[in-house]
Amino acid sequence: MKTENTVIDATESTFRNGVDATALLETIAYLGENADKAQFKFRARNRWIDGSQNEATIDTFHALGEEQSHDRAHLVRADQPALILGKDEAPNPVENLLAALSSCIATTTVYHAAASGETIEEFTSELEGAIDVQGFMGIDPDVREGFNEITVKVKARSTANEQRLRELISKSPVLDVLRHGTKVNIEIESKS
Amino acid sequence: MKTENTVIDATESTFRNGVDATALLETIAYLGENADKAQFKFRARNRWIDGSQNEATIDTFHALGEEQSHDRAHLVRADQPALILGKDEAPNPVENLLAALSSCIATTTVYHAAASGETIEEFTSELEGAIDVQGFMGIDPDVREGFNEITVKVKARSTANEQRLRELISKSPVLDVLRHGTKVNIEIESKS
Repeated sequence: MKTENTVIDATESTFRNGVDATALLETIAYLGENADKAQFKFRARNRWIDGSQNEATIDTFHALGEEQSHDRAHLVRADQPALILGKDEAPNPVENLLAALSSCIATTTVYHAAASGETIEEFTSELEGAIDVQGFMGIDPDVREGFNEITVKVKARSTANEQRLRELISKSPVLDVLRHGTKVNIEIESKS
Repeated sequence: MKTENTVIDATESTFRNGVDATALLETIAYLGENADKAQFKFRARNRWIDGSQNEATIDTFHALGEEQSHDRAHLVRADQPALILGKDEAPNPVENLLAALSSCIATTTVYHAAASGETIEEFTSELEGAIDVQGFMGIDPDVREGFNEITVKVKARSTANEQRLRELISKSPVLDVLRHGTKVNIEIESKS
């Protein structure tokens, strides 16, 4: 992350785990002294297509006190398998949630390892989330709509031991949100 | 959703909002009487590529008491923008989380509307999540890693009024998990 007060000379940067560890450490130092620049905002907008199909577009975000743009807009499709009455052209929303958790755990581990001098050689995970669809379907009001439980099995080859890997993983933003929840405000503009 | 006890005659099915409402209502009735078949499991597995880049694969799931497969494996890539030291070839994990929430809200609304006889003509949403990255970066231990708050702005053109749309949206599994949290078990297999 390059900040306005930081000029990174690429020839002097130390890359670790494919991450520019020099830039990462300078960013951490910069944001430690500029808390107002650490207030990031991420966004997605979604358009329903038909039935089980919809598409999210991700293009802008707010970081380091300024509006920012991705190099191009990223699209994320959702669908359902035939068994859940879709056309199976993309993962379904709860599968995309698991994908987001899996990627956040990987990125968090790799970045924190880079910052603290640990080398990651391999990092894979398998996730499974259990859901009783009687909740979603409104069959039983005592059953929750979402996952009752998610299990993440991580396999890593690295200089970090299991305890250290657990510490690194625990810094994952998506893991934090899934474990502890967050406030979600819903505003609705309805037309007939 | 087709069940073992249900034979759907497509010519007799009523489609609403692009969803086979006849099949949906029959599925709800079937699962209401077969709670053991309502225990679904969804999965993703992730492989770290390098630095900010990793890829999730989604192929199998468990539904209606049986192992199931998607028609093909779905891939979900994650990256980071250049400013967060990535190559910007895909959304980042927290953006993918917002995308999952946006798609779940859309699908949930459309399916529940189909089941209850409401017509959805248009459904879009804009999501923004606020995150203080001093938490993720370990600068301030009192700051959480994940989103402090997410705002979802929905625009809908439908036969449902705002209150009814709010009821439909509230059945979203991803919304439930984000609002209330869930148990996440992490198992680690570490090699050096």
